[in-house]
This record gives sequence, C-alpha cells and structure tokens, in this order.
Amino acid sequence: MTKELERLKEVKGAKIVENMNVDELVKELRGCAFGAGRLAKAVDIYEEMLNEETTKFMGIAGALVPAGMRNIIAEMIRERYVDVVVTTGANLVHDIIEALGEHHYKIEAADENADVAVDDVRLREHGSDRIYDVIVHDEAFARLEDFIRGVFEKLSRKKRYSIKELLTAIGEKLSDRNSILRSAVDSEVPIFCPAIADSMIGLHAWIYKQTSPLEVDAFDDMKDLIDIFSEAKRTGAIILGGGVPKNFIFQTALIAPSREEGREGFDYAIQITTNTPEDGSLSGATLEEAKSWGKVGGKAKAVTVYCDATIALPIIVAAVRERMEEGKHKP
Amino acid sequence: MTKELERLKEVKGAKIVENMNVDELVKELRGCAFGAGRLAKAVDIYEEMLNEETTKFMGIAGALVPAGMRNIIAEMIRERYVDVVVTTGANLVHDIIEALGEHHYKIEAADENADVAVDDVRLREHGSDRIYDVIVHDEAFARLEDFIRGVFEKLSRKKRYSIKELLTAIGEKLSDRNSILRSAVDSEVPIFCPAIADSMIGLHAWIYKQTSPLEVDAFDDMKDLIDIFSEAKRTGAIILGGGVPKNFIFQTALIAPSREEGREGFDYAIQITTNTPEDGSLSGATLEEAKSWGKVGGKAKAVTVYCDATIALPIIVAAVRERMEEGKHKP
Amino acid sequence: MTKELERLKEVKGAKIVENMNVDELVKELRGCAFGAGRLAKAVDIYEEMLNEETTKFMGIAGALVPAGMRNIIAEMIRERYVDVVVTTGANLVHDIIEALGEHHYKIEAADENADVAVDDVRLREHGSDRIYDVIVHDEAFARLEDFIRGVFEKLSRKKRYSIKELLTAIGEKLSDRNSILRSAVDSEVPIFCPAIADSMIGLHAWIYKQTSPLEVDAFDDMKDLIDIFSEAKRTGAIILGGGVPKNFIFQTALIAPSREEGREGFDYAIQITTNTPEDGSLSGATLEEAKSWGKVGGKAKAVTVYCDATIALPIIVAAVRERMEEGKHKP
Amino acid sequence: MTKELERLKEVKGAKIVENMNVDELVKELRGCAFGAGRLAKAVDIYEEMLNEETTKFMGIAGALVPAGMRNIIAEMIRERYVDVVVTTGANLVHDIIEALGEHHYKIEAADENADVAVDDVRLREHGSDRIYDVIVHDEAFARLEDFIRGVFEKLSRKKRYSIKELLTAIGEKLSDRNSILRSAVDSEVPIFCPAIADSMIGLHAWIYKQTSPLEVDAFDDMKDLIDIFSEAKRTGAIILGGGVPKNFIFQTALIAPSREEGREGFDYAIQITTNTPEDGSLSGATLEEAKSWGKVGGKAKAVTVYCDATIALPIIVAAVRERMEEGKHKP
Repeated sequence: MTKELERLKEVKGAKIVENMNVDELVKELRGCAFGAGRLAKAVDIYEEMLNEETTKFMGIAGALVPAGMRNIIAEMIRERYVDVVVTTGANLVHDIIEALGEHHYKIEAADENADVAVDDVRLREHGSDRIYDVIVHDEAFARLEDFIRGVFEKLSRKKRYSIKELLTAIGEKLSDRNSILRSAVDSEVPIFCPAIADSMIGLHAWIYKQTSPLEVDAFDDMKDLIDIFSEAKRTGAIILGGGVPKNFIFQTALIAPSREEGREGFDYAIQITTNTPEDGSLSGATLEEAKSWGKVGGKAKAVTVYCDATIALPIIVAAVRERMEEGKHKP
Repeated sequence: MTKELERLKEVKGAKIVENMNVDELVKELRGCAFGAGRLAKAVDIYEEMLNEETTKFMGIAGALVPAGMRNIIAEMIRERYVDVVVTTGANLVHDIIEALGEHHYKIEAADENADVAVDDVRLREHGSDRIYDVIVHDEAFARLEDFIRGVFEKLSRKKRYSIKELLTAIGEKLSDRNSILRSAVDSEVPIFCPAIADSMIGLHAWIYKQTSPLEVDAFDDMKDLIDIFSEAKRTGAIILGGGVPKNFIFQTALIAPSREEGREGFDYAIQITTNTPEDGSLSGATLEEAKSWGKVGGKAKAVTVYCDATIALPIIVAAVRERMEEGKHKP
Repeated sequence: MTKELERLKEVKGAKIVENMNVDELVKELRGCAFGAGRLAKAVDIYEEMLNEETTKFMGIAGALVPAGMRNIIAEMIRERYVDVVVTTGANLVHDIIEALGEHHYKIEAADENADVAVDDVRLREHGSDRIYDVIVHDEAFARLEDFIRGVFEKLSRKKRYSIKELLTAIGEKLSDRNSILRSAVDSEVPIFCPAIADSMIGLHAWIYKQTSPLEVDAFDDMKDLIDIFSEAKRTGAIILGGGVPKNFIFQTALIAPSREEGREGFDYAIQITTNTPEDGSLSGATLEEAKSWGKVGGKAKAVTVYCDATIALPIIVAAVRERMEEGKHKP
Repeated sequence: MTKELERLKEVKGAKIVENMNVDELVKELRGCAFGAGRLAKAVDIYEEMLNEETTKFMGIAGALVPAGMRNIIAEMIRERYVDVVVTTGANLVHDIIEALGEHHYKIEAADENADVAVDDVRLREHGSDRIYDVIVHDEAFARLEDFIRGVFEKLSRKKRYSIKELLTAIGEKLSDRNSILRSAVDSEVPIFCPAIADSMIGLHAWIYKQTSPLEVDAFDDMKDLIDIFSEAKRTGAIILGGGVPKNFIFQTALIAPSREEGREGFDYAIQITTNTPEDGSLSGATLEEAKSWGKVGGKAKAVTVYCDATIALPIIVAAVRERMEEGKHKP
C-alpha cells in the first residue's frame, strides 16, 4: 500500500438545504474535491490560525479595493483577523480615493467581458480610467494629488522616513473609519508597501521632490517586518494574488532568526490566486515550492485556492467569522 | 457623454456581518466588480429564469460528479431547477458508479496540488485511477461493466435507440434516488450526451457489439432537443465548463424555428468556466460572441462567471434556492 | 542524494544568432526551463516517434481551422506525420467551408482583444458569425448546407454508416487538395469524430432526417480505432487542446489488448493546451495523471506544452520537418 | 456596413516548407488568427519600433533568468534592442548568481509538471531551492551574499543612492559580459528596479544596515525614468509578464510632459503574458485598457501575445533580428 493511498477519504457530495449560512455551505464543501475542497480547507486553516495565537501576514495584490473588497479588508484589520499587511501601492491609492469621498464606478454593461462594453479611447476623452469593469474619474486622482501633497508638506524635512512611516502619516490624516490605511493606524496593524514608487503616491513624490526634500528609504522597513516574524509564536500567511506582496512576506521567513530548532518558514499558509504554476512565475508558484526555500514550513498547513479573490475572500471571511462568533458563545 | 458612461453605477463594497446566509452574502457582492459582481449577477439571472417560465438547459462538462457535485445536480433535476441536461459521458459514468454503491476518494495530501502528492505509476500498480485529487478504483469500473452489460442485454435487439433512450434505459435500472440519471427519469428531465461513444459506456458498447447487435443512432436525439427549444416560451442556458455540452445546447438555437419575429437565441445565459477567450476555443468564448451567431439573443440577460464550477455552482444554487423559498412564503 | 537531484542538468541559456532556422532556435531552447524547455522536448519526442515506426494519433480540439492551421494539418496527414485523426465536428465543418471556396476573415482591429473591436449584435445583423477574431459569413454556411445535403442524398439508404464512413463520403466529394478531409481520404488516414452530432453536420443530418432516412451509428467507429491501436508496433499521441478528441484517443488505450507483457498505454505523448490541471478538467489534466489510468505508459516519453496551439504547432512541425529532411540526406 | 467589417482580411493559412528560418515562419503566421496572428503582429510592431527612432522600455517580470533567457536579454541590451529596463529584484539576483559562475539546474524529470517530480521538503534538506522546474543551490546564494556585501562596503557612506545607482555599482563589479547588469553598464542602458527591497538584495541590505549605514532612496529613480520618456522622440514598451515592471513603465506616461499637442502615452506596445483580463489584475489587463488611462496612446500600435514568455520572446527576437540584418544589407 502506498503512502498516498493510506490517506484517501471518501468524496462526500455537497448538499444544499434551505437557508444555509455561509459556513454551513463551506462545511458541505469539505467532502468535495477540486476548488470546492480547497476552499473549505482554507477556512479550516484560517480558523486554526485564529485559535492558535498566530501572527497573520496578509499580502494583497490585484485591484481588490476598486472591486469592492475595501470594507472586508479594513474590517479584517480592525478585528485583527490580520496582524500585518503587505500590499501594492495601487490598493492604497484607491483606498485613499474612497476615504476622500470619491468613488469607483462599475460598467453595468460589462456583465461578462469588460472590454466589450467600452471604447477606451472615448473613455480617455472623458477622463475616465478603466480597471477591467471599474471606472475611476480623473477628478478622483486630482483630489488624491491635493491630499498627498498636503501630507508631504506636513512631514519633517529633517527626518528620513521608512515607507511604513510614510503610510502611517497618510493614514493618520484620513478620517474615514472604513479606510484600510486609517484602520491600520487605529489598530496598530503595520502596512508595508515595498514598491510604493510604483503607484500614484510615487508619482506625486516625484513631483514634490522637484522642489522640496523628501527622503524615504527603500530598505528601512525590512527590519520591522523581520522582527515581527522573529518574535511571533506562530506565523500564518494569507496571500491574495501573488506579486511583490507574496514574495515580500515569504522572503521574511528566509532570514528571520530560527525561533527554535527544526522550525522554519510559515506555520500556516493560504493562497488565493488565478495564476497557475506552469509558466514558472512566482504569482502562480505552489506553496509546496515555497517549502523547498524554507518560506513555508515542511509541516505547515497550507492550501492554494485557485479562484478570483473577489469570490473566495468574502466566502472565507464570512465562514471563519461565523466560527469565531460561535466560539465566543461556547461555555 | 458616451453610452457607456450613462450606465455607470457606484461600486458598493461588500460587508460581512454575523451569521449571513449564502444569499445575503451574494447580495453584498452585487455592488462589487470583477468575479464577485458577476457571481451576484448570475444569481439574479437564474432567479429571473425561475420566475419567468423559462425552459432551462444545463450543460455539464468537467469532472463535476467525481468532485462531489452529484447531489446538487441531481437535486436541481428533481426540483426542476433545470429542464434539460446535456453532459459528457464521463459524468454519467461516475454517476452510475456512485449509484452502484462504489465511491470516489479524495487524496487528502493534495491540498494545493494534486500532482505533488502522488506517483501515478504507483497508482497504476494499485489499480487506482486519478482525476486531479480524486481517485477511483478499478473495482468500481468492473462493477460498472457488469451493470452496463446487464442493461445492454435487456435492450430490444430490433429497435434502433437514440442516445437519450439508451440513457433512460440505464437510469431506470438505477435505484439510487440521488443519481443524476435516476432523477432525470423520475422527473422526466431528458439527458443528452452526444459524445457518449467517448466514455466507458462507449467502450462497453464496443465490447458488447463484438458479439451482439446494438444500434444507437448518432443523430436521433437532435429532433427532441430542437423541439423542446422550439416549444419553449422562454429559454435559458446554464453552461458549466464548455466542451460539447455548451455547443450542443447553443447550436440548437441556430436551427430551432423562430418563435416570433425578431426573437432568436437563448433569452438567458449563465456560463461558469475557467477558460478564457484569448485562445479562440469555444469553451472560453464569451456569451457576446454567441450573440453574433444568434445562439444567445441580442437582448438576452447573460453573464459569464470565470470560476471553478465546484465553487460557483454551490453558491449560486444555495442563493437562488433561498430566494425561491422566500418567494413561496410571500402572500 | 535524492533521485531528483541526480537528474539535474545545468540550465543553458538560449542564444539567438543571425539567420537561425526554426529547428536551430528550438535546439537553443533545449537547455531552457519552463515552456521553452517543454517545447524543445516536444520536438525531440516527435522526432523519435517519426523515426521509430510509431502509429501517431492526433487529437484536434479548438478552432484550429478557422485560425489558419488547416494547411499544416492537411500536410501532416498527407506526409503521414500523423496516421489517425480524432477531431471536433467544427474543425471539419470549417475545413469543408474552405474546400468549397468560402473563406474565414480576420478582424484586423482585434490585435489584442477580439471582443473589444466588435459589436456582436451588429455582426449578427450582417450575418457575420464570430470565432474570437475570426468571422465566417452566413453565406459560407449556406454553401455548406447545399453540399452536405448533396452528400447525404448520394448515400445508400440501406446501409448503416459509421461516422468515419460518413466523413469519408464527404471527403471524397471535396476536390480541394488542401482539405483535411480530402487529404485523409487520399492518404488513407482515418478521421474520427465521435461528437459529430455536435456540429453543423449534425444539424443538417437532423434536417435531412425529417424527410429521408439516414442511419449513422454512434459506436461503430470504436472497433476501427481500437484495432489500429492494437496492431501498432508503437503508439504516439499528439493532443491539441483537450476535449473529446483527447479522451477518445486515450480511452482507446484502456481497452486495446495488451500487445506484450508489461506494456500498456501510449508510448509517446505530446499535449499542447492552454488549460491547466487545477480545476480538475480533463482538458488540463497532466499526462502523468493519464499514467494512473494506463492511458499513457508508465515509461512513456511525454510532455505537455502549455501554449496556444496556433503558436506551438507551427514551430514543432517546422522543426521536426527540418530534422526529417536532414535525416533523408544522411548517407 | 459596420466599421469592423470594413477591416476584415482573409485568413491565410500558414504553410510550413523546408528549412524555414524563424522570420519566414513568423511571416507565415501573419495571415493566421488567435495567438499566431498576434505573435506575427508583435514582430511587425517591434520592427517598426527599431526602424523609427523609438526609445524602447522593456519590463521583465517572472523568473526569466532562471529559465534561460539571460543571454537573450543581455544581448538585447548590448545591441540596443532595448534602451531602458525595468525588472524585478529576482531577475537581477539570478543574473548576478550566473555572473559569479554559479548555475541554475533543470529538473529533467519535470517534463510536464515540475511539481510531480520532486519532494520539496527533501529539496529543502539538500539546500536546493525550486523555481518550478529549476533548482538553485544555497551555495549560490552564499556566493551572492559575499559579493553583494562587498559591493555595499565599497559604497560611499555619505551619499544617498538611488536604486539605479546601486544597480550600476553592482553591475560595474561583474566581469561576465553576458550579465544583464554588466551589459547595461557597458551599453549605458539604465536598469530600474522599484521593488528592490523585495529580493535577496533587499535582504542583504537589511543585514548590512544592522551595522553600517546604507541609504537608498525609494523615489529618486522616478526623475530619470520620466526624463527619458519626456525626451524620447517616440516611445515603445515591451512588457514581459506584468507586475511592478509593467506598471512602473506605464505610469511614467501618465506624468511625463506631453511632447506635442494631441500626443500622449506610448506609441508602441507589445505585451507577452499568460495572465488574462478577467480577474481585473493589472498583469492581465489589456493594452486597450491602458489607453483609457493615457498610458498607451489612442493611436498606438499595440498587441498582446498571450504566451509563456520563454516561448514567445526567443521567437520574436530571432525574427526581428533577421529583419534588422536584412535591412543592413539593403542598398
């Protein structure tokens, strides 16, 4: 008998009944295979992370804020479903835009293919910038520019900032409680954004630096991130979409001092991605591959859900939240 | 102002609250973009199909039965959430296997990548056949063979069967109420399988025909399918995964007599697929493309959800079922 | 030292020099990883198939004929780079259309996204049917109808045809030497199309059968295919795009009598696909998975190239052809 | 007649003849649709870029160096097929590793699925780090560490470096002519890497900064990049794989002073990616979408090739190089 065959479990078909809550549906998917089984497994792993004093690092790539995931992410921060966030500059830019009272708009005709419903050259003429089936207007970016410039002007001219400190300075100026940046400041959840130059914040930094000093160090943040990892009792990674956030979180595990003998890498890892491994890109790389590097521990509980994060994330959060609430009411 | 910009709607971020049922979550996704918005739209379209006397054609490709979707599909048939099914031979084979009391097994180690957890040559030695992270044992196929042979032997030697009639004969012999084939017989939902030769049923037909006559016509089913389409008041397509089932359903619309002037093609269409259009394959083709052919009506309500069907189907069915139950209780 | 690490080979970067022929480029890719390495491996495997008296089965799914791959496929048949073809009805329909002097047209604006350049409802009004960035006009299908009806009328009313015989009857009536169907007749390469009902040929069979008898058996072809497999000295599969053709070729190996002890499944397999395994669909299933079934031999030489077949096929054919020509000139 | 239908062109099937050079094959693909047509179009656009005094920006994401594309990229720099490079830290790290005489290794068994051939936990025990089907040994990273530390120690302690200056300092220390970084120094092609912190270089910067000062500014590079764009007569983007490099190149166009009235965005753009637009991520976003932002000009010549870059890049470079050579010999 091979090792694999000892670990077989009967597929148990999902049943849909009346008035299921999200977690009841997820539990029905536990016995299923393919994506359904992996989605259910992700909830189980997340639940264990939350119950086991785990420091939870979330990586956010992809335009999740424009797509409407901002409230969910901000709430995850406020409720400490995550303890550290690494993200792209774009998600922060769009978070600020909403915090300033500007909006994203959805192209209603774009039910199945955003590209079919629009003429991008005409959108350009109207000052409408497209992210698949979402539109942002140039006015929103003008508001952003004023705001960011205002933040820059209040910064100390003598200090060298880390990127995290710069983001904290921005977050402190936002009054919208649903803002990711504001929530992070309020909840003392650090936000890292190693590629911040690669965003509108970077562009405005360039403009500002034409006339005024502004010093932001490319490497200063690494110490904080590595310290958090090193001091954690257990570590978990929730990777939404790959890119720089995924690697920045995982590379931390490469260098953080070993906590105890025989342990290395993240103890838990959940990855939600639409990329697949076949082209060799990191965004689609399996969590197994991460084990060869020591990024994910050899005995880690880990699962990849190949799914649009705008579908998988709300389900996972709703289900795990239900479990946490139930846990509270237990005697 | 361009036509597109008149149809913009503010993105409204999803909120997760305590104890949400599946439909409440789906309604939160309505204001979101990307996959989340399309998933919510699929539920809205399906609800309208169910409320508007629509004849609903479901295409099933991909190994949904081995993955654990059998109960959901059988229930959709029994509850008449679908009125016609077109599927691959493989899904029927695996339905029969379960109806005979055999099982599918899930490779528990295969959390993120089925291929990593197994040695397929060793599986072969153990008579274990793999479908991604699912295993079927050779014994199950031996049971299938006996059963199918028994059905063939009871068929009239004088009659020429259509594929649908052959499937009905099989379904009648199954006693498992959760079987797709049995449910279809019980509920008078016709099942079509144009590529039946491309399945274990086909292989056993070949063996049987070595010694006994068995005549099954490749084209006879088309009349029934076209008649159903022609006589329908409204038509809806639910396409899970492309392939032959998608085309066979859609081509029906090409030839069915126009019901009234100016109307052609399906009135509603929902497509759940992981294929994308860029390589020109039909499985990834947009429903917009289908409009150029007249397969989907120019004014049809249509949406494609780019998602693993084992994730999207349970959510859609749970949500729409909730709405139907609510509808029943309205005064 | 683990088994894996004994089989490591230094990555040798590709170099581009002046005036490389296609095979020289492919040989440069041999030392590369990811898709490049697999493409080069596919050529090596194909070369070995051609040199080792292998019966070569080619599966063709996806709209390769509309995309412009018809000449290449027809030539592969005429030159016996393939010995058996299994395809979708659609590819045959479009082959006939071109053989009748009708054409496919390319939407020139659709450089990067076919869907962006067109209004499918307007296309419909103009009788233009779209396949991603390709257009076929309704007139072409009208010509097809006349032709197919003519073929049906010449068929014997007493005979029960296999699908292969029906396709042979069609091919014999085509005079275009570049036709796939005609080339197959000329070269005695059998063409199988198990899902023929799922095509315009199927639709016209339905119309014809309203008034005249036409009997085509769904299962009769299997014997021929299995006999060819059983009698082959060595067997090779070239799978373009998955679907029914992939499974129909591979299932043959499940039932064909073992040729000698310890041997089963295809000896060589090349798969070109844009599908990936993660959603459990057969079209994306690895050739490793096929080994667990005995479809591909445990010691087979096999490679999957994850690539649009319209890119990979011409390269592979050009490269392997170059090698065959070189082989001829050797003393 | 609609606008689209005026621009139809007959699909002209590709023909393979004996001893074709790469460009002859590409020219055969010009008349084809789907990926084949787009690949041919990419070569035509690149040729025009090279003939029309275009400043060419290349973005490199994905592990192209480990896969064996290093020589090709270095040669593109040396021969000024590109004028500016934006890349991930990882590609630079692997370039340095090879320049130091260390190697990447290919898992030979991993013909179709890298994950199947290895046990990542065992690889970890052997100090072997996996990138899909490529292995790098820990020793290579130890060599890298020594080297990088040596470079850091030679830096001026008083100066604040831009990331580009840091990369130049590294490149100057490399003696391998085939190195990307060395070639860039030699050819005065600037290399930008906005997310450098997200790489082994970043990790070693963190270690170094524990004990010694090292000041690298996150934003200083933007000025150079924007100046190059602003001063260019014409601009072209060659985007391999999305991510930060894609956005960093394109965002430059958002802010660079308009060169003349009515002109904005890149004049040419070629994108090679395996991501598709449906999940809203930037890596899969169409070049059409980029037009709505003004990143790509409304009249730009632009094409996306959906393909593994390790396949498409060598073909494109070989073909366009052939054309340039031919051009030289013209009277």
